[in-house]
Amino acid sequence: MSEQPESNITKGADSWFNKYTMVETSPEGTFKGVKDRFNGITVDSNMETCSADSFPTILKRSLEHWIDSKNRGIWFKVHLNAASWIPELVNNGFQFHHAKNTFVTLYRWLPTEESANIPPYSHTMVGVGALVMNDRNQVLVVSENYALIAGSWKLPGGYVEPNENFIDAAIREVAEETNIRTKFDSVVSIRHAHGAGFGCSDLYIVMALTPLTEDISKCNREIARCEWMDVDKYLNHPNVHETNRNFVRTYLEYKRLGVRIDCTEEMHQVLKKRYNIYSVAKVAENGESNTTSSSTSDSNTTLKL
Amino acid sequence: MSEQPESNITKGADSWFNKYTMVETSPEGTFKGVKDRFNGITVDSNMETCSADSFPTILKRSLEHWIDSKNRGIWFKVHLNAASWIPELVNNGFQFHHAKNTFVTLYRWLPTEESANIPPYSHTMVGVGALVMNDRNQVLVVSENYALIAGSWKLPGGYVEPNENFIDAAIREVAEETNIRTKFDSVVSIRHAHGAGFGCSDLYIVMALTPLTEDISKCNREIARCEWMDVDKYLNHPNVHETNRNFVRTYLEYKRLGVRIDCTEEMHQVLKKRYNIYSVAKVAENGESNTTSSSTSDSNTTLKL
Repeated sequence: MSEQPESNITKGADSWFNKYTMVETSPEGTFKGVKDRFNGITVDSNMETCSADSFPTILKRSLEHWIDSKNRGIWFKVHLNAASWIPELVNNGFQFHHAKNTFVTLYRWLPTEESANIPPYSHTMVGVGALVMNDRNQVLVVSENYALIAGSWKLPGGYVEPNENFIDAAIREVAEETNIRTKFDSVVSIRHAHGAGFGCSDLYIVMALTPLTEDISKCNREIARCEWMDVDKYLNHPNVHETNRNFVRTYLEYKRLGVRIDCTEEMHQVLKKRYNIYSVAKVAENGESNTTSSSTSDSNTTLKL
Repeated sequence: MSEQPESNITKGADSWFNKYTMVETSPEGTFKGVKDRFNGITVDSNMETCSADSFPTILKRSLEHWIDSKNRGIWFKVHLNAASWIPELVNNGFQFHHAKNTFVTLYRWLPTEESANIPPYSHTMVGVGALVMNDRNQVLVVSENYALIAGSWKLPGGYVEPNENFIDAAIREVAEETNIRTKFDSVVSIRHAHGAGFGCSDLYIVMALTPLTEDISKCNREIARCEWMDVDKYLNHPNVHETNRNFVRTYLEYKRLGVRIDCTEEMHQVLKKRYNIYSVAKVAENGESNTTSSSTSDSNTTLKL
């Protein structure tokens, strides 16, 4: 059990940040805040304003009240225009939890008889790489302007945007970098590593996409060179990283075995929230693929209710 | 091209945060900072201290110098004991980027003729679920104390810790919640959804683990009930979410088809950094599995150099 919603979506979306239903029993001269189901309190500086001068007194009274009331995790979502609150919160034992452009969230765990049970914020950067192979057995490759290994050929790709599906991200990146339009075929491999940007871990999802167009028009800002490279050349090219070659070998082996990692779309029965599920699918004799996870779905991203 | 290291690990680890090699040409009375390869500057409050009183003047001079020098992204990593810097940084056009317990990082994009090219911080919470099936066709299921749907049976699991591998996370969560020891068998499915905790997206990786012990001893803090449930009962239980049933069906289908999603460990040739790669493996006639991605690997998490 954690102070915040768990990764299993059935444990609840974070309605506590979206609904600001204040605790109406709070004494005069304190922050009201919103209570969560773990007996924590969240104060949002946009919802309960106060001057920089009066903040220390109100904070002190509020903390006394919350300690008396046996509240547990106390959260302050502080927006840019209330940045003056931050030093005072830190003076009162608050630490940083996460931040995003216009706000930072600080927290303090009040119980002394119970160890802090605050889940860390997201610490995994997710990127996609696109393995685009045409029917002449050529792979779409790019060489970046700011490549770490100068002149190396890699797969088009980049970071997944907030709230973006992985397939959409791969299709978007290919279009941005090369102007080739594509459609989803299969996830190939997923690579996980630590110690990447901002001290995060790194998840790199390689997807096979089928090209729908042929003529390359590269993005000059990002891409130095871009071409359709014969797969045999790619698999033996000194400027292709061994891991990238392996992704191609893996994909060719999937085709030989008649397997794919497909994506289906489902909807949570209770929360009415959509999600994508990636599972191995076996390509049937007739060339159609059937996901193993569902007897009703016979195409990609079919919505299952 | 982005202001920060890209998700493709070959684009570079963020050495700019780990090495503090100051810019020695900075004028008197300015922050030196560390230059990155995108012509950005990072100042760390632990490396360059200054009093709250003198901070506004030094910041002003520094910004003038950085603008003259055509620097691009300016980053301040501000630790708790320098929290007084934050309101002044905000007054000078800085925004929050990310935060973690003892520090918050703020940034400002200086160029006016070029749109900001700052990648967002990690926005995906990663959790694991463990499908532990014994040789009597029973599934290890738990019912949580703070379940969103009271009394529902789910798979043991939880968040992946910073710098933790997914398999280790699944094995750890099963041990913590049920005291059952396990070993990795296969990834089953990966579920991706949006609008989860802290406004992040949610990645839930379901893994089949083979139990090495049998006797359950549940964690009373988190778990209300825990048992080995017959798979047929599980697949028809009204208190089992349909998605969870589907994970079990998918796994049974993998066994029938003789496929797994295996994990191999590789090392980056240049960066000498290890990573895990997940790909479909075909189980051979003799029951051994061979990952399709490698002709040399014939066991889980084999290190390939």
